[in-house]
Amino acid sequence: MASNKIKPQTLRGFRDFLPDQMIAREHLIDTARRVYRSYGFAPIDTPALEYAEILVGQGGEESDKQVFRFTDQGDRDVAMRFDLTVPLARYAARHIQEIGTPFRRYHIAPVWRGERPARGRYREFMQCDFDTIGTASNTADIETLLVINDLFDAVGVDRFTVRVNNRKVLNGFLEKKQLQESATGILRCLDKLEKIGRDAVAAEMQERVGLSASDASNVLDMAQLTGTPDAVLSQLDGILTGSSTGEEGLAHLGELFKTVRGCGLPEDRVCLDVSIARGLDYYTGTIYETFLSDLPTIGSVCSGGRYDNLAAKFTSQQLPGVGASLGLDRMLAAMEELGMTARASTPADVLITMFSRGHLVDYQQAARMLRQRGIGAEVYPEARNIGRQLKYADRRGFAVVLIAGTDELAAGTWQVKVLESGNQQEVSSDVLVDTVHGILSEIADPEGD
Amino acid sequence: MASNKIKPQTLRGFRDFLPDQMIAREHLIDTARRVYRSYGFAPIDTPALEYAEILVGQGGEESDKQVFRFTDQGDRDVAMRFDLTVPLARYAARHIQEIGTPFRRYHIAPVWRGERPARGRYREFMQCDFDTIGTASNTADIETLLVINDLFDAVGVDRFTVRVNNRKVLNGFLEKKQLQESATGILRCLDKLEKIGRDAVAAEMQERVGLSASDASNVLDMAQLTGTPDAVLSQLDGILTGSSTGEEGLAHLGELFKTVRGCGLPEDRVCLDVSIARGLDYYTGTIYETFLSDLPTIGSVCSGGRYDNLAAKFTSQQLPGVGASLGLDRMLAAMEELGMTARASTPADVLITMFSRGHLVDYQQAARMLRQRGIGAEVYPEARNIGRQLKYADRRGFAVVLIAGTDELAAGTWQVKVLESGNQQEVSSDVLVDTVHGILSEIADPEGD
Repeated sequence: MASNKIKPQTLRGFRDFLPDQMIAREHLIDTARRVYRSYGFAPIDTPALEYAEILVGQGGEESDKQVFRFTDQGDRDVAMRFDLTVPLARYAARHIQEIGTPFRRYHIAPVWRGERPARGRYREFMQCDFDTIGTASNTADIETLLVINDLFDAVGVDRFTVRVNNRKVLNGFLEKKQLQESATGILRCLDKLEKIGRDAVAAEMQERVGLSASDASNVLDMAQLTGTPDAVLSQLDGILTGSSTGEEGLAHLGELFKTVRGCGLPEDRVCLDVSIARGLDYYTGTIYETFLSDLPTIGSVCSGGRYDNLAAKFTSQQLPGVGASLGLDRMLAAMEELGMTARASTPADVLITMFSRGHLVDYQQAARMLRQRGIGAEVYPEARNIGRQLKYADRRGFAVVLIAGTDELAAGTWQVKVLESGNQQEVSSDVLVDTVHGILSEIADPEGD
Repeated sequence: MASNKIKPQTLRGFRDFLPDQMIAREHLIDTARRVYRSYGFAPIDTPALEYAEILVGQGGEESDKQVFRFTDQGDRDVAMRFDLTVPLARYAARHIQEIGTPFRRYHIAPVWRGERPARGRYREFMQCDFDTIGTASNTADIETLLVINDLFDAVGVDRFTVRVNNRKVLNGFLEKKQLQESATGILRCLDKLEKIGRDAVAAEMQERVGLSASDASNVLDMAQLTGTPDAVLSQLDGILTGSSTGEEGLAHLGELFKTVRGCGLPEDRVCLDVSIARGLDYYTGTIYETFLSDLPTIGSVCSGGRYDNLAAKFTSQQLPGVGASLGLDRMLAAMEELGMTARASTPADVLITMFSRGHLVDYQQAARMLRQRGIGAEVYPEARNIGRQLKYADRRGFAVVLIAGTDELAAGTWQVKVLESGNQQEVSSDVLVDTVHGILSEIADPEGD
């Protein structure tokens, strides 16, 4: 009979999150939310399931095949969302009159793609987007950059670079060279520059897009301009003279770098990288990619850009916007690799052991006093031997263990054990909460800053 | 060509959440998380999609029909989770050796049911569960009750009652009367007591379950015992003498009420209600329902109970547990009806108007100073006329608006406007943050407590 059990497995590409992983995820999500909110981005949510016609038929055949799509009980053709952008477009088309513009929203929610699972690629993953829609103003592009900066600051990452570019720069250049009809192909090639190198990209531009060797070389010369933002901008200024598209892109980039400097961001955090194009045809202005200096190979951990018309599929109202998305799984993988994630599998700091079941009220009262002071406290549920309870505390990652048997409680005292150091002291009940608070402050900030 | 737009509709029973609704939802979820965490419950997550055999075939035919089930791209029979309990069972069977017991977890995530949509009933909704598994100790049952109490305290609801019962009381009684084989049918009838009244339940017990008139009357007499918990317990003590099941139930209830009193919970918040049975066959011990005194008709907003063996479908390891679930949608509806939800559609308190585009750095710097003090600040993205920006501020629900044109900035001053009162004052830049902080503290707590 034991064999009629069902194997408790998950689908390939889907994940269970254990407490320690989930605590790290919730912490990162909370941090992102706090930063988004501090700029006035408001939360929204949309359904996981939508009519299939809402979601598919935009991203091209390849991505449509990845959509989880089926016929529901009511015979409707439905699909699970594969990103948060298409649902935002649908949402904006439906609600923008009521909400009004400019509309700043964040949306942190799971999406599903039936991709081939691979290291770091899953069929279910969280997206963590923020966007400002209904304004074409470059101030929103600049603010997007400031949000990205503050986000990584808040996460505790100091060494990162946001690479910024503007699609209009490249488009202006291509217009001048009368290559605008090949723009999409050229962008696709450029996107591989870091991966396959200049020569291979030049070859692809000639073979696949049909550029002349000198045009390919010109495009690459421009994309590979290096130097301070001001130096690159002034070189581009010469190259793009006479192209109104190009000049607009330069003006926007100029205002962006000026404001960033004015706000006192470290110089090396934001750079102008003319080579970044981002694969999607979707972006039309500023684009962003964010790299961690200590782990550049993991790729961009926060990317986005400006688009001209978010909801064209659903409404004739023009809705320009700009935004970016934190790559939550990639960022968590990076933080783990950089040793930045805590290893505790409990969100509480204190375990109150149960020495004697008869004293349950005392244990729960001590726990309640700690919680009122904002300190998480768990009461062990059974009066097992203390060694076993200490082992449990250690395994879960509690910082402090409290022990009191009949004698201690009669005398009004507690044993307070600090797990990391092994130190143990006896304290009077009336200073218990203060003592624990002091110990936890010391652990959180040993220098006492 | 305008007619080839796709209608931006959602599926029936599915919802878009507007910013004001979502701010209220996030606030309630945050509160629940904070309380769960303060007791040492750790977050977990599981996939939205599972093998169908994992999820279906447990809840009976009726509920299986409600499951969103389909064949995926890899020809697998998959389904979307319809609750968080079956996934927890699968998760525990898979990971419990690694995690160890006792295991306290919370899980806050959407679930999907293809039910007929109705007022307050949706096809996608959030569940907000917490459970302690791997211990049969009644201390965990008691703690579950304390969590429920603290949860409503933290939400800001004072007037509520948790109705507690123990399945063993009724089962013990039925054993004594040799009616245990009809237990399920009797429980189903009892569950309707509040809705259809004593006479109708008595009639159903006779017609559908085959009880004699006197047995039905005895069951109802017991279920309708009223008085203080101690008074009811002492009456039950007489009725159940000799039934070990019944006596165990009474001992657990006795310890529960004693501890609750010892922890100082208000007397009227926790009552013993022998009539509650909860429909599910699943519960085996303590059961809980929570009613809001000012809105009892909305039904239980937080329910749960103890179960003997969570993961029997997946493992032969016995996993007893106890937990409860906050009914998020119902609770939000109640809070709205009771006027407890804020109406703002922005999470930030301050709007910085844009008087002149050339001063963007000044505006962003002021915003950064406010954010560093923990005050959310949005910068309006375009230099439109101030009346329009004020109207935007009003519509979004900002508390304070800051205005500075070229003259003010040259003089180092800001106009600070409080939207609710309409008061406006000019302050020097160096006290701007303090002034705004003072105004917001005053709004949050007008009595200065």
